[in-house]
Amino acid sequence: MADRIVAARVIVTSPGRNFVTLKIETASGLSGIGDATLNGRELAVASYLADHVVPTLIGRDPAAIEDTWQYLYRGAYWRRGPVTMSAIAAVDVALWDIKAKAAGMPLYQLLGGASRESMLCYSHANGADIEAAMDSVAGHLAQGYKAIRVQAGVPGLKRIYGVHSAHGDSTQHQDRPDEGDWDTASYLRHAPRIFEAARARFGEELHLLHDAHHRLLPNEAARLGQDLEPYRLFWLEDVTPAENQAAFRTVRAKTTTPLAVGEVFNTIWDCQALITEQLIDYIRATLVHAGGITHVRRIADLAALYGVRTGFHGASDLSPVTMGAALHFDRWVPNFGIQEYSIHPNEAAEVFQWNWSFRDGMLHCGETPGHGVEIDETAAAKFPYRRSYLDVNRLQDGTLWNW
Amino acid sequence: MADRIVAARVIVTSPGRNFVTLKIETASGLSGIGDATLNGRELAVASYLADHVVPTLIGRDPAAIEDTWQYLYRGAYWRRGPVTMSAIAAVDVALWDIKAKAAGMPLYQLLGGASRESMLCYSHANGADIEAAMDSVAGHLAQGYKAIRVQAGVPGLKRIYGVHSAHGDSTQHQDRPDEGDWDTASYLRHAPRIFEAARARFGEELHLLHDAHHRLLPNEAARLGQDLEPYRLFWLEDVTPAENQAAFRTVRAKTTTPLAVGEVFNTIWDCQALITEQLIDYIRATLVHAGGITHVRRIADLAALYGVRTGFHGASDLSPVTMGAALHFDRWVPNFGIQEYSIHPNEAAEVFQWNWSFRDGMLHCGETPGHGVEIDETAAAKFPYRRSYLDVNRLQDGTLWNW
Amino acid sequence: MADRIVAARVIVTSPGRNFVTLKIETASGLSGIGDATLNGRELAVASYLADHVVPTLIGRDPAAIEDTWQYLYRGAYWRRGPVTMSAIAAVDVALWDIKAKAAGMPLYQLLGGASRESMLCYSHANGADIEAAMDSVAGHLAQGYKAIRVQAGVPGLKRIYGVHSAHGDSTQHQDRPDEGDWDTASYLRHAPRIFEAARARFGEELHLLHDAHHRLLPNEAARLGQDLEPYRLFWLEDVTPAENQAAFRTVRAKTTTPLAVGEVFNTIWDCQALITEQLIDYIRATLVHAGGITHVRRIADLAALYGVRTGFHGASDLSPVTMGAALHFDRWVPNFGIQEYSIHPNEAAEVFQWNWSFRDGMLHCGETPGHGVEIDETAAAKFPYRRSYLDVNRLQDGTLWNW
Amino acid sequence: MADRIVAARVIVTSPGRNFVTLKIETASGLSGIGDATLNGRELAVASYLADHVVPTLIGRDPAAIEDTWQYLYRGAYWRRGPVTMSAIAAVDVALWDIKAKAAGMPLYQLLGGASRESMLCYSHANGADIEAAMDSVAGHLAQGYKAIRVQAGVPGLKRIYGVHSAHGDSTQHQDRPDEGDWDTASYLRHAPRIFEAARARFGEELHLLHDAHHRLLPNEAARLGQDLEPYRLFWLEDVTPAENQAAFRTVRAKTTTPLAVGEVFNTIWDCQALITEQLIDYIRATLVHAGGITHVRRIADLAALYGVRTGFHGASDLSPVTMGAALHFDRWVPNFGIQEYSIHPNEAAEVFQWNWSFRDGMLHCGETPGHGVEIDETAAAKFPYRRSYLDVNRLQDGTLWNW
Repeated sequence: MADRIVAARVIVTSPGRNFVTLKIETASGLSGIGDATLNGRELAVASYLADHVVPTLIGRDPAAIEDTWQYLYRGAYWRRGPVTMSAIAAVDVALWDIKAKAAGMPLYQLLGGASRESMLCYSHANGADIEAAMDSVAGHLAQGYKAIRVQAGVPGLKRIYGVHSAHGDSTQHQDRPDEGDWDTASYLRHAPRIFEAARARFGEELHLLHDAHHRLLPNEAARLGQDLEPYRLFWLEDVTPAENQAAFRTVRAKTTTPLAVGEVFNTIWDCQALITEQLIDYIRATLVHAGGITHVRRIADLAALYGVRTGFHGASDLSPVTMGAALHFDRWVPNFGIQEYSIHPNEAAEVFQWNWSFRDGMLHCGETPGHGVEIDETAAAKFPYRRSYLDVNRLQDGTLWNW
Repeated sequence: MADRIVAARVIVTSPGRNFVTLKIETASGLSGIGDATLNGRELAVASYLADHVVPTLIGRDPAAIEDTWQYLYRGAYWRRGPVTMSAIAAVDVALWDIKAKAAGMPLYQLLGGASRESMLCYSHANGADIEAAMDSVAGHLAQGYKAIRVQAGVPGLKRIYGVHSAHGDSTQHQDRPDEGDWDTASYLRHAPRIFEAARARFGEELHLLHDAHHRLLPNEAARLGQDLEPYRLFWLEDVTPAENQAAFRTVRAKTTTPLAVGEVFNTIWDCQALITEQLIDYIRATLVHAGGITHVRRIADLAALYGVRTGFHGASDLSPVTMGAALHFDRWVPNFGIQEYSIHPNEAAEVFQWNWSFRDGMLHCGETPGHGVEIDETAAAKFPYRRSYLDVNRLQDGTLWNW
Repeated sequence: MADRIVAARVIVTSPGRNFVTLKIETASGLSGIGDATLNGRELAVASYLADHVVPTLIGRDPAAIEDTWQYLYRGAYWRRGPVTMSAIAAVDVALWDIKAKAAGMPLYQLLGGASRESMLCYSHANGADIEAAMDSVAGHLAQGYKAIRVQAGVPGLKRIYGVHSAHGDSTQHQDRPDEGDWDTASYLRHAPRIFEAARARFGEELHLLHDAHHRLLPNEAARLGQDLEPYRLFWLEDVTPAENQAAFRTVRAKTTTPLAVGEVFNTIWDCQALITEQLIDYIRATLVHAGGITHVRRIADLAALYGVRTGFHGASDLSPVTMGAALHFDRWVPNFGIQEYSIHPNEAAEVFQWNWSFRDGMLHCGETPGHGVEIDETAAAKFPYRRSYLDVNRLQDGTLWNW
Repeated sequence: MADRIVAARVIVTSPGRNFVTLKIETASGLSGIGDATLNGRELAVASYLADHVVPTLIGRDPAAIEDTWQYLYRGAYWRRGPVTMSAIAAVDVALWDIKAKAAGMPLYQLLGGASRESMLCYSHANGADIEAAMDSVAGHLAQGYKAIRVQAGVPGLKRIYGVHSAHGDSTQHQDRPDEGDWDTASYLRHAPRIFEAARARFGEELHLLHDAHHRLLPNEAARLGQDLEPYRLFWLEDVTPAENQAAFRTVRAKTTTPLAVGEVFNTIWDCQALITEQLIDYIRATLVHAGGITHVRRIADLAALYGVRTGFHGASDLSPVTMGAALHFDRWVPNFGIQEYSIHPNEAAEVFQWNWSFRDGMLHCGETPGHGVEIDETAAAKFPYRRSYLDVNRLQDGTLWNW
C-alpha cells in the first residue's frame, strides 16, 4: 500500500543567514527536507508553501514525485517565477530525499549512479584592490582550491559586489537594501588588469572565474570577453541580464571566453534559447530556485544536447540542503562542469547536519540514504528570522541599475 | 518639495472572493490603491508586499514611479513570475492612482488621453450542453452584450471549465483544488458544434469567443482553429501552454482563426516572440499580474508595432481595482481590442467603490481623479480570507494535465 | 467639460539660427509650444503645419494627445518622413506641455517621474588638425564636460564637418549648400590618430565620442570600429547611412566599439531592425524629428528591451524647446545614455526662455510645470527667417557623397 | 557647352482638384514639368520646392539628372518621407522631360525603348451596395475595360472608401477631414459576397481587383485572402499598413491571392523586405511620391529580380503629368503588370495638355518628345488652390483607424 504524507511544515531560521526549509513526514515514518530559501523574499516563499501548498500535500503519496511536481506547476495556473519555483523545489527535493531513504540509497543512485568520484568546485577570492584580491587568491590556493572566482574593487567605486565591507557580509540584516554605485567604463578598464595580475602571479594552470553580475549591456559584455581572452578564464559569469536571451547572441558572436549564466533562472524556459542556440557554456540554475531535481534534471539534459555543462550556483544564501542535494546531482550528471562552493556561517552547522566534505579542491558527497542533510528544529528555533535584503545598485547619476 | 510615502499596508479581504489590496498613503494626504490578487496564492503576494516590499517604500517619493518600478524589479534579484510581478503591480497602480489624483485628472489623461469613448467588452456564457449554452448566450444578449465567450460541457466529461457546478462558483473556497477530467479528442469533435449552433441561432454579427484553456497541444490547436474558421470567431483563447512561445508557430501556420493568449503572463518576455513573430492577435496580460501600468504599457506598445491588440483578462478574480485601472488603460491604448468583463460578487461592492459602468454592451470608465476605485477598510475587515484554489485537471488515465 | 484648442500658430524666427515653433492655446487659458525646426527645410514644415495641420486642430480637446497623434499620423495618408514627423512632433510636444501645465507638474512627472537627478551630456571639440582638436578638448574639459565628441580636419581635405570655417558656423545663412570634399581612405588612416592623441594627453577616464557622419560604407565602418577599439570610445556615431538597416550587421559583426545612430530618423520603423537585432548601442532619434514624446517614448521603450540606450541628438539646430522637452524625457527614461548638448546662439535667449542649466558636466532640467520653455513672440518677430542650408559633400572626383 | 537651368517655378492650381507642378526652364530654351502633388498636404511640398529646392537648381546642368537626384536626396540630410520625395520627384520628372525633348525622343526611348505597344489598365467600379457595384462594373465593361477594381458599401457602415457620396467626390474641398466609420468584422463577412456576385454575373475572364485600404490587421488580411481565393482576383490591394513590412509575412503564408501594395511608399526602403522576401506580387509606388523616374526605376528593377511586377497607383489626385510620365515608364519596364487609371476632372484638361489615350481597355502613350504633358500657366491661374483633405477613419467606438 502506498505511503502517504501526514505532515509538512515550513521552518524559518536565521543561523547567520535566513533559511527556509520544508520538512515532509510520511505515515511510514520517513521524512525529508527541501530548501525554499529565496534571499530577500524568504517569507513570501514560506507563505506560498505554508498557506497554499502544504494543505494540498497532506494525504498524497510521497512516491508520486512527478505527479506532485506537475500538480504544483500546472495547478498554480500562474507558472514560473522565483517564488513559485522555489516552493515547488522545496517539495521536490524533500520528496526525493524521502524516496532515496525509502530505497536505502544515497540520492545520486536514484538519478543514475555516480559518473565521478568527486566534484571540482570554486570559491570566491575578493579584494578591495587588485593586490588584496591576489592575496585572497593565494589564501584560497593554500586551502587547496583549484578554481577561484576573483573580484576586486574598481577604482572610484565605493563598493563592488563580492567585496566584503568592514561590518561583515554586506548582504545580510538590513532594514532596506544597501545602495551600491556603478560605472561600467571604469569597470571595463579595470577588470582585465585583475586577471593580468593573477596570471602573472599564479601562472597558467589555476582555473580563474569572474562574475560581471549582470551589470553590462550586451556589447559591453562582448568587449570584456575579448579583453579577457588572453587570460583564458574558466568562465565569465552573468555578463548581462538574460530576460532577453537574444542578448547573448551579441556577446557570443564576439568572444570565445566561456560564458556562464543562470543563477537567477527558475525554469527551463529561461534558458531555452541560450542553450539551443549554444550561446553559453555553463548553466547555473540551482535546484532551489529552478524547481528542484525533477526540473533541473531536464535543464541539464537539454544542456547536454548542445554542449553546455552545469555550474550550479552555490552561494551561502542557498541552504546546506541545496548544497547537499546539488552534490548528489553533480555526482550523477554526465555534463557536469563545476560547482560553486561557499562556506555557510558557523551557526548554520548548529541547525543543519550534513555529510559532504571538501578536500584537495574537490567536493565529496556523502553516502548515507537520501541527500544527506538533516535539520535540527529545536536548534532552528533559536535563530529567529531577521529581515534582510540584497543590495540594489545605481549608476552615479542615480539611475537604478542591475545588481 | 517632494511628497513622500508615509504608510503602506496590505488589506486581505474576501467579499465573495479573496482580494489582496495595497494602500499607499503620502505625507501630503494623498492615497492610492493597487490590486495584488493572485487567485489561489493570495497570501504569498500579501507576504511579498508586507514583509519585503512595504518596508522599502516608506520615505520614498510617490511620484518616482519608474524608479520605484525598477527598484522593485531589478532589486528583487530573482525577477519575473506571478508573485513578484503582482506585488510590483500593486505598488505601481497605487502610485499611478496617487499621481493622477495629484494632477487632478482621471488616470487615462496621464497615459495620453482618451482614444475612444467606451470599451467593447465580453462576458461568459456557459452551459452543461450546447442547448444550455445557447440559452446562456441568449441571456447575455438580452443584457446588451455584443461579444460573448461561449463554453459548453463536452459529452463524456464530468466538468468543463466555466460551467458552474451546483454549489456555485467552482473556483472558490475549497480545501484543495477540485480535479476535473479531460479528453482532447472528445473536445475537438465537440467544440465546432457549439459555434455551428451559435451561428445558426444568433446569426453572423454577434462576436463569439472561445477559450481552450491551455488544454491542447500545438497541432491540436491548429486543427481546432481550422475547424472553427467557418464560424468566424472574434478569438480563440489559450489554445496551448505558451512557455514555449514557438508552440504558436505551429498553430499560426495552419489557421487564420484569431488567437488570444496571455492571462497568465507576467512580463513582456513571456510574449516577446509571440508578439514580434506576429503569432497572436490579442495579448491578454493584465495590469495586476504583469507589473502594473508601467510594464503593461510597454507590452501594449510592443504589440502595436506588430498588429497585436489588447484583450485584457478580466475574470472576477481580478479585484475591482484592476478593472478600474484597466478601463483607464483601455480608454487610452491605441491598439485596444476588447476587455473581458465579469461581474464581481455582490459583497465586493460593500468593500470597493468604483465609478465605471456597463451599458449597451460597452464599458464606460469614470472621470474622477485617479483610477476611480476606493476601498472601505472597515467593510473589508468583515470578510476574512478563506483559503481557495483554482481547479486542476487530469486526463482520463489520471495524467495531470493543463487547466 | 473638456478644454478645447482655440488657437494655434507657427512662429518662424532666426535669432542666430532659424527656428520654427508651434504655439497652441486653449479655451481655459493654457498654452504650450513645440519645436518644428527642420534645418534647411524649415518653411516646408511651417507650411505643413500652418496650411494643413492647424486648421484641423481648432476645437479639438488638447488632452486627447494620443488621438491627435494618430489623427495626424494616420490621417496624413502618406506617413513618415522628416517634414511630416516634425510637424506632428510640434503638435505633440505642445500638447504635452499643456497637459503638464494643467496637472501643475514638470513634464517628467507625467512620463513616470525622475529616474535620475541630472543628465550626462557631451559637447563638441573640433580642430583643423589634431593639435587644435586637442586644445579644443582641453577647453571643454575646463568647462567641466565629462564627455566630448572630437573631430579633426583630415590632411588633404579642405573641410571636415564640425570644423568651423573662417566665417563662423558653416551651416547657416547660405544661398545654397556649401560643398565639402571627402576621401575615405585618408579619413580612415587619420581618425585613429585623433584618439591615440586624446588618450595620450587626457588619459583613460574622459568619455570620447566621434561622428563619422554617414560617410563610410559598412565594411569601412567595421574597420574603423576595430581600429578605434584601443581608445575605448563612448560611441562611434553615424558610421554609415541606415536606410538599409542591415548595413549595420556588417559593422556589428566586426567590432565592439559602441555604435550610435539615428539623428536623421523619423519613426520607429527607421530603427526597428537596428534595435531588435541589437545592431546599435545608442539611439539618437530626437523628439522634434521623430514624432514627439508620444512616438519617441515608444522608440525608447523598444530600445530598452534590447539593451539599447538613448543618446538624443542635440545640435543647436534643434530649438531650445526640443532641448527643454528632451531633458524632461531624459530625466525619466530608464535606459538613458547621454544627451548631446550644444549652446544656442546668444540671440536665441532673447526669443526663448528656459530653465535648464549646465553644471559640473551634467544637465539639470527645470521643475516648473510643463517642459519649461517659453517663447517671446515679440522678440521672435525681430529675427526674420534667413534661408540657410546644410552642406553637401563630394568625393574628390566629383561624386555626390553622404554628408 | 552644358545647358543650364535658368528658371524653376511652382504652379499650384485646382482645376477640380489641387495639383502642384514644377516647371523648369533652361538657357537653351527647353522646359519640362514634374508633378509634386501630395493630396491634402500640397502646400508643404510647394514650399519645400519653392523655398528650399528651387534656389539650388538655378545654374545647374539640367542633363545631370543623377547628380541632381543625389544632391537633393543626400543633401536634404533628413531623407525619405512623402514631402521630400515628392519634391525630388518633381525635379526628376521635369529633368527627364527636358532630356527627352533635347534628344527629340519620347521619354520611353531614353529608358530603353518600348517593351509593349499598349498597357493594360484598370478602373474603379463602386456601389452603395453589391447590386449598384455590379451595375458600375457593367458600365465599365461597356467602356471597354478589361480590369476593374470593385468596391461596395458594407451594410451598417455609413461610408466606404471609393463610394462617392451624394455631393460628389468625397475627398475634395473640405475644411477638415471627413470622418468615416469602420467595422472590420462586417467588412470581412461582406467582401467575398461582392466577388461571388461579380463572378456570377460577369464570368471568369474579367480581371477583378479589390482594395482593402490598409484597414485590416495582418491575420485578418490573411483570412480575407483565403476567402477571396475562389474568385481569382487579379490582386488584393493594401491589405494592411506596411510600415512593418514583416506584417505581410503573416498574410503571404496563408493565401495565394495576389497582393499589391505601395501607393503610399516613398522610397525603395519602404518595400525592401516586401520585395526581397517575395511577400507581394505588385508594387504600386508612384513616380510622384517615390522620387521620380530615377528612383522608381530602381524599385522596378529590384522587383523584377523577385518576380514582382509594377501596378502603379493612378488615382486622380496624381496630376496628368504623373500619368503621362508613368505611361512612358510602363511602356518600357519589362516587369510591367497593370496601370491604375482614373479620369481627371474636366477642368484639368483646360490646364494640362496630354497625348495619351485609352482604347479597347488599354492605355497608349504618346510619341512626342518628352513625357508628353504640358501645362498652360494662364489657365492654371484661373483655378486657385482650395484647401482639401483626405478622409480619416474611426472605428465605431471612436478609435482613430487606418484610412
